[in-house]
Amino acid sequence: MMHFADRLIAAVRAKRTPLSVGLDPRWDLLPESIRARHGETLRGRARAYEEFCSRVLDVVAPLVGVVKPQSAFFEACGPAGMTALWQVIRRARRHGLITILDAKRNDIASTAEAYAEATFHVYEADALTINPYLGRESIEPFLKAARPSSRGVFVLTRTSNPGGGQFQDLNCGGKPLHVHVGEAIGEWSRENLGQSGFGDVGAVVGATKPAELRDLRALLPNVLFLVPGYGAQGATAADTASAFRADGTGAVINSARATLFPFKPSDSAWEAAVATATRAAIQELAANTAAARLESA
Amino acid sequence: MMHFADRLIAAVRAKRTPLSVGLDPRWDLLPESIRARHGETLRGRARAYEEFCSRVLDVVAPLVGVVKPQSAFFEACGPAGMTALWQVIRRARRHGLITILDAKRNDIASTAEAYAEATFHVYEADALTINPYLGRESIEPFLKAARPSSRGVFVLTRTSNPGGGQFQDLNCGGKPLHVHVGEAIGEWSRENLGQSGFGDVGAVVGATKPAELRDLRALLPNVLFLVPGYGAQGATAADTASAFRADGTGAVINSARATLFPFKPSDSAWEAAVATATRAAIQELAANTAAARLESA
Repeated sequence: MMHFADRLIAAVRAKRTPLSVGLDPRWDLLPESIRARHGETLRGRARAYEEFCSRVLDVVAPLVGVVKPQSAFFEACGPAGMTALWQVIRRARRHGLITILDAKRNDIASTAEAYAEATFHVYEADALTINPYLGRESIEPFLKAARPSSRGVFVLTRTSNPGGGQFQDLNCGGKPLHVHVGEAIGEWSRENLGQSGFGDVGAVVGATKPAELRDLRALLPNVLFLVPGYGAQGATAADTASAFRADGTGAVINSARATLFPFKPSDSAWEAAVATATRAAIQELAANTAAARLESA
Repeated sequence: MMHFADRLIAAVRAKRTPLSVGLDPRWDLLPESIRARHGETLRGRARAYEEFCSRVLDVVAPLVGVVKPQSAFFEACGPAGMTALWQVIRRARRHGLITILDAKRNDIASTAEAYAEATFHVYEADALTINPYLGRESIEPFLKAARPSSRGVFVLTRTSNPGGGQFQDLNCGGKPLHVHVGEAIGEWSRENLGQSGFGDVGAVVGATKPAELRDLRALLPNVLFLVPGYGAQGATAADTASAFRADGTGAVINSARATLFPFKPSDSAWEAAVATATRAAIQELAANTAAARLESA
């Protein structure tokens, strides 16, 4: 099987957009018709999330190469939510999409192995977001599980939330903590480069911090970036431009709310219009991203 | 309902030991008879974990006040594993035990809210371990969910793994990162102190680093410590002593492997002997911890 980075780059190239659709189903934003059909029990919510994400997947599969399911929303539905998550990832894979499970896991030794087992062999995602606080030792079990099956990880580096700098920007011996983390990611990534020149250890860097994004891109030419924050979190397409290398590759730009919910829950036309509204939203985001990427090149 | 810290302190006092039993079911270490009964499918594993943990809970409930289920092992069994986790937490609560869900979650805004919802309202644990890398902003939704229902959180500070210092010990402006995190925990904790004088934001500090443990205890008199690393990870009872305040309170010492697996999987006498072996293991650990705590006082 192809190296994870090569698969990701090929998926982006095939769809001519680095856009990733974040699958963050939020009960309050779902169409009322779907909510009414399933009801607000844990199981009902889980089924509503599965139905909603499945419909979105069917619309977005021809348009983007990557989707990022957010584990937390499924977990909040109890065990039934995990069945829904499993179904959603399976459907995405059948569509040929790369799936990045956003679960921000982290632990050590056999516990990290169990999380990796869950991600790559039970839910069968292509990649997982992980938190670096416990050090290289906590990343190792994820790499050991990911590499034999051409999977990857994305390590939190500089996150998109306004308060993300509290620890990430602390000056540690002349450079911020997130740069120390970035340098470590660079090392881990270089251990296993694909033909594309990128490694299988990526970095999560928020688009809401364009200066940090630019500096990290310069520092880490071989590292894939997963860039959240575009759209609802306030970053513009132009803010995402510096995530790319000069050749226009190397980043996946995630958008959740703007692509999932281009309608009001009360919009009774949703069931018929989902294809149109969601497709239009993605095409607009993709066009803006492409324009920004060209300007940066 | 009583403040989380007061509940925890009362539970420790009632059982006269600060010991917590880590519920980390590992397939390879389970008694062969349980493995054979359920089989190695995901569902079989989940049921074996539930049976094993339930038996352990029945034995340990009269001996300790706190248990710490490790989410990863249940997650690796797929959706059925989450049903098992739910059952195990429910059984622990019926025994009157305080449950700390070790899931090391972290995210921002509504995503963190969803994790808090899952922990406190779906799985109904009393506390959750969380990772500080995303800053105060990512802790806030957990506190907002925990406080109205007298729950708590434990924030990773200096972890027990040998490589935990890679980032946690970086010198940031004259003090290590884990001290910056500790100071922030101290602030968050003081916002809501119980009658015991402890707050509902605790710190995870490994027993494998006794010097750091002592310094953090001196820095954070109002913070509850959750101390892993005792036993299989190499820390001794004496190493845990500095986790306590001079009055002997303020820490929960977790042990998983030594309490869960005081037998070989092939030991055919396990089914009959679990009560004896597990009880003996806990009594020994509790006695050692008590001795260390007295010496520190």
